[in-house]
Amino acid sequence: MKARQYFQDYMAAQTCFGCGPDNGNGFKIRSHWENELSVCEWQAEQYHEGWAGLTCGGVIATLVDCHCIATSMATAIKQENREMGSDPKYVFATGALNITYLKPSSVDKPIRLEAKVSKIKYDKKYTVECSVYVDGEKTAQAEVVTLLVYRSDKPEEGSKAFQT
Amino acid sequence: MKARQYFQDYMAAQTCFGCGPDNGNGFKIRSHWENELSVCEWQAEQYHEGWAGLTCGGVIATLVDCHCIATSMATAIKQENREMGSDPKYVFATGALNITYLKPSSVDKPIRLEAKVSKIKYDKKYTVECSVYVDGEKTAQAEVVTLLVYRSDKPEEGSKAFQT
Repeated sequence: MKARQYFQDYMAAQTCFGCGPDNGNGFKIRSHWENELSVCEWQAEQYHEGWAGLTCGGVIATLVDCHCIATSMATAIKQENREMGSDPKYVFATGALNITYLKPSSVDKPIRLEAKVSKIKYDKKYTVECSVYVDGEKTAQAEVVTLLVYRSDKPEEGSKAFQT
Repeated sequence: MKARQYFQDYMAAQTCFGCGPDNGNGFKIRSHWENELSVCEWQAEQYHEGWAGLTCGGVIATLVDCHCIATSMATAIKQENREMGSDPKYVFATGALNITYLKPSSVDKPIRLEAKVSKIKYDKKYTVECSVYVDGEKTAQAEVVTLLVYRSDKPEEGSKAFQT
């Protein structure tokens, strides 16, 4: 059986606050495939609460944002039938983040995110649907628009701001 | 001249990851009135970046979320012509967070948020418009729906999950 691959280990930079494996102060989320779904499982610390005992809405937004960026990259690579880590490298950025909070998320229980790209426009604009679960109950639903802002094989087309 | 009042010093709990003055690991944002606008100014640390040199989208979402929650509380109290810190205490939670990212936000420059409640429905559901600026340029625009989920004078009407 193939070892599980975490998308964040193959991203163009490793220091993101939400998902960088090398960011000692960050959330270090990790995303992987479970069949067609992109999944992230994460346990908050007590200090990630907003109101007492409930995970801060902004923390959940950060998980959703980073997980959907990683899901976009992994989907783009999967569609090209190539391995993560192979060239060209793709850099995605968030265009829009839309989250509806359905119920409180307990800070002391694992949180699970399931995401899937639902639409790709002009090969550059991805729409990602993401559901957030705690204890099997959906606590938030999100739609995130991500943009392929830089690719290593066509640097002239990309945004210099996102060149890594 | 009256000393500036920061909304977060008057909230029902002080440990929120985004805005709690007592959260040693959090962002400790502070919001105040500038005439009719609710304003938050904040300086990220380097480790709040997403891609190199640019503030993580989730960090911006956290600032927006907490600033709009605080703005809702301060607006509710202002409408009742009373002082922050007076009873009853109001607890708001996020119903929806919708952010459009217009351009990258440099992590090494101060970020400024300006927010205003645009709509109040049933005395409970607030819509808050929030603009994000770096160096005078708008880098994100958000609309946040917040919900008055608990008030200390009518505990029976509120959600126990948010009782502080």
